[in-house]
Amino acid sequence: MEPAGSDTLEVTIRLPDWVAAYVATLPAVIPRRENRLRVAIELARQNVAHGSGGPFGAAVFDESGRLYAPGVNLVVPLGCSILHAEMVALALAQRRAGRFDLSAGGQRRFELCASTEPCAMCFGAVPWSGVTSLVCGARDADARDAGFDEGPKLQDWVGALAERGIEVVRDLLRAEAVAVFRDYAAAGGAIYNAGKAR
Amino acid sequence: MEPAGSDTLEVTIRLPDWVAAYVATLPAVIPRRENRLRVAIELARQNVAHGSGGPFGAAVFDESGRLYAPGVNLVVPLGCSILHAEMVALALAQRRAGRFDLSAGGQRRFELCASTEPCAMCFGAVPWSGVTSLVCGARDADARDAGFDEGPKLQDWVGALAERGIEVVRDLLRAEAVAVFRDYAAAGGAIYNAGKAR
Repeated sequence: MEPAGSDTLEVTIRLPDWVAAYVATLPAVIPRRENRLRVAIELARQNVAHGSGGPFGAAVFDESGRLYAPGVNLVVPLGCSILHAEMVALALAQRRAGRFDLSAGGQRRFELCASTEPCAMCFGAVPWSGVTSLVCGARDADARDAGFDEGPKLQDWVGALAERGIEVVRDLLRAEAVAVFRDYAAAGGAIYNAGKAR
Repeated sequence: MEPAGSDTLEVTIRLPDWVAAYVATLPAVIPRRENRLRVAIELARQNVAHGSGGPFGAAVFDESGRLYAPGVNLVVPLGCSILHAEMVALALAQRRAGRFDLSAGGQRRFELCASTEPCAMCFGAVPWSGVTSLVCGARDADARDAGFDEGPKLQDWVGALAERGIEVVRDLLRAEAVAVFRDYAAAGGAIYNAGKAR
């Protein structure tokens, strides 16, 4: 076993190359919420098509409807269990903003679109991120039905976010979003787990 | 505003330089659980002393009691809300192991020591990581009493982890662990928030 080497160990969160090409095809501003969520779903779909990670996508948009940072599930390719699509999008959005609180103390509004409702970890990450709304495609129950694990999450997770001033929009483009991970599972895509993590 | 530039945006999780020097002072194997937790608490303490992040530390140990990866809270210095000490330690441990599931499908045992009980996000991250035990110093209530936010977490989070085969040990070195963030708060250390994240 190599030495603990804390001076050399590091993890870089970087998107697959195809993401930039996809992002370049998008309009500068995406005024409709549904179309913003469609970006997250398309990221999920293309992540599967490119074999670059699991069937989940996310995207952070600013208040003008500009894509601020995309994210895809990178757990398997980067060998890192925290790299769910939402976490990747949040980390990259904060990197772009240059601050850990996207809202800048409540002065800015950012929306996180996620192809599927958040797992327990991503749910817990949302309040720390400074996003002010969360827009989801597939239900967590849909993901569970397809064999993915959402983790031990508060039953009223939507209410818990609302209490913190974070609006949650559900069931937008649900069928479109579900199709991505159902197709993935049906094609024999790895539903990896540690225990049974998604 | 710069272009979304998903091809150039990246975030690197890297420990402060002092961590390697501290780790070099530790014995190769730390047989007692209490002393392993003490490493996490000392990482928290030194993170404050060096001004390199918030008053929280964590460390992953393998089944032989070797330090596998240290972690400290890097939210403020790296401008990234997901970089709680536990997340950093897990990401670096997985990097070292070369896999997102530390347990390697149940063949290995890894312990996560955390100076304070996990927030909602870190709690949700534990089942995905492949650690088989979680050892905590300060209670989440202690952190809340000092002004830190633990997020919306399941009331029986210990039971939820136990159900997944993850043992939780609480209240080890509690006073020692609490002292670190109390001293930090008393000295006027930033209790940063997005809303009021810890």
